[in-house]
Amino acid sequence: MGTNNMMQKNYYAVIEAGGTKFNCAIVDEQRNLHAQTRIATTEPDETLALVIEFFQQQRTTFYFDKLGLACFGPVDLNPRSSTFGHITATPKPNWSNTAILSRLKDGLDCEVFIDTDVNAAALAEHHWGAAQNTSVSIYITIGTGVGGGVIVNGTPLHGLIHPEIGHMLIPAPEGIQGACPFHGNCVEGLASGTAMGKIWQQSAETLSDDHQAWDIQAQVLARLCHNLIVGYSAEKIVFGGGVMAKPNLLDKVIAYTQTSLAEYVTFPQGSSLHNIICLPGLGQHSGLFGGLALILAKP
Amino acid sequence: MGTNNMMQKNYYAVIEAGGTKFNCAIVDEQRNLHAQTRIATTEPDETLALVIEFFQQQRTTFYFDKLGLACFGPVDLNPRSSTFGHITATPKPNWSNTAILSRLKDGLDCEVFIDTDVNAAALAEHHWGAAQNTSVSIYITIGTGVGGGVIVNGTPLHGLIHPEIGHMLIPAPEGIQGACPFHGNCVEGLASGTAMGKIWQQSAETLSDDHQAWDIQAQVLARLCHNLIVGYSAEKIVFGGGVMAKPNLLDKVIAYTQTSLAEYVTFPQGSSLHNIICLPGLGQHSGLFGGLALILAKP
Repeated sequence: MGTNNMMQKNYYAVIEAGGTKFNCAIVDEQRNLHAQTRIATTEPDETLALVIEFFQQQRTTFYFDKLGLACFGPVDLNPRSSTFGHITATPKPNWSNTAILSRLKDGLDCEVFIDTDVNAAALAEHHWGAAQNTSVSIYITIGTGVGGGVIVNGTPLHGLIHPEIGHMLIPAPEGIQGACPFHGNCVEGLASGTAMGKIWQQSAETLSDDHQAWDIQAQVLARLCHNLIVGYSAEKIVFGGGVMAKPNLLDKVIAYTQTSLAEYVTFPQGSSLHNIICLPGLGQHSGLFGGLALILAKP
Repeated sequence: MGTNNMMQKNYYAVIEAGGTKFNCAIVDEQRNLHAQTRIATTEPDETLALVIEFFQQQRTTFYFDKLGLACFGPVDLNPRSSTFGHITATPKPNWSNTAILSRLKDGLDCEVFIDTDVNAAALAEHHWGAAQNTSVSIYITIGTGVGGGVIVNGTPLHGLIHPEIGHMLIPAPEGIQGACPFHGNCVEGLASGTAMGKIWQQSAETLSDDHQAWDIQAQVLARLCHNLIVGYSAEKIVFGGGVMAKPNLLDKVIAYTQTSLAEYVTFPQGSSLHNIICLPGLGQHSGLFGGLALILAKP
């Protein structure tokens, strides 16, 4: 008896596919996690076989017929392309030209919804996190690399392929030389964990809280914020990734952005950089729930 | 007799409102110009009175009840704001806080459709010009200042206010110091006509075709293009404004953009920078027809 017992829960398979690990889970619409595992990103054959095996096991308990795939890029997102759902030219060894969408679709006989990891995370933050009720919001992750996803009027921005905001050129702080092998002084070349390691000759994790590296990092991210505000008129810039957990870093980024914009931009009443530049509302889960957002956002 | 004679033409009032002049016209849906005048931008009272007088005179011949206003910025585009349709804080003397939308609406008793001059031009290029059939396109104008408008899925990007792409920070070419009073090395500070005059100590119009200024200009605009391609995954970047008429400048911009991207971005088959970076399809009329696009794009 009781209607609650009669209600059928819908389960969904979601994957946050990264260059280091595939974070896999079964979730419901209320974002409850019913099962979760992390599978190392090794070779496509090995990794995808383990991913499929995990979901096949779960499916006997948590039936699903839709999978949301928040995928590391670059990835072909054009449904009219013959390589739709392929990872394209990635520096990740052996993953270039992997038909990740069709391999998961065929392996699990289910519908697959794909977008970049950062577009998916941006969508999750838009639906449930820090960027609710905005028409233009951006999710930036600072980790091994720097990536960004953009939501405009509820939809991830794709354009020709998809944005690669991490490779935006910005002026380097004085005396600093960016380390991107392609572009030198792009955001990724100046602010990624990898770049910090090269610039300061030690791993970012080992840099003490009062090391000048963090002040330089804040200046670099402020220049990115400057460009995102004048470029997109972004209502929210959500910073994810481990690096942003550094104490006071976000406040410093906000202060330097204020200085950089030099009062050129007059914000509408009630808006200020303090509520535009922020941390994720979904904590560490923006990417995983991004997979769910990709499924639920579709008509 | 004859159905052609029976067909009623619809006329529309359109204004490209700039800091130097208001370009006013009566157009029909087919973009035929039936009347046109240019009114100097002096004081708001004087200029707007002359604009209203022009349209009142035309209305006896070409009846209209809709006006499309492609307006210099910054302008409040939020319909829920108490200052919707106001020019906000502009360096143009006496124009700050001008309620341009309501003054034209009341003065002409007609519906007014407003957006920034560059968003309107971007929309016109999207509908009828060089950026047809794209999901993400950008219109950039290089003149006294540098402005940019963005169209995503058929709609101008607004966000918090509206983009100010001209104020995006980019690395300056070696030995060059940008002249933006707010930001130094932003695109406007490096590439506007005003900035070129300051950097080279002579007016841009008087710089000979083989002056190194044009090579530097191409490098600067290539860095902008780099950022627009990685930032928005733009399918078209349309360059308007007098400066781009310089012989070979566009080709140089394309070549330097190619070098700058360093093959990081793999374009889909059939796409290349040669068809992404281009001149307006509507020639000098992108702004004026932008006014018409604002009217016709509304439901």
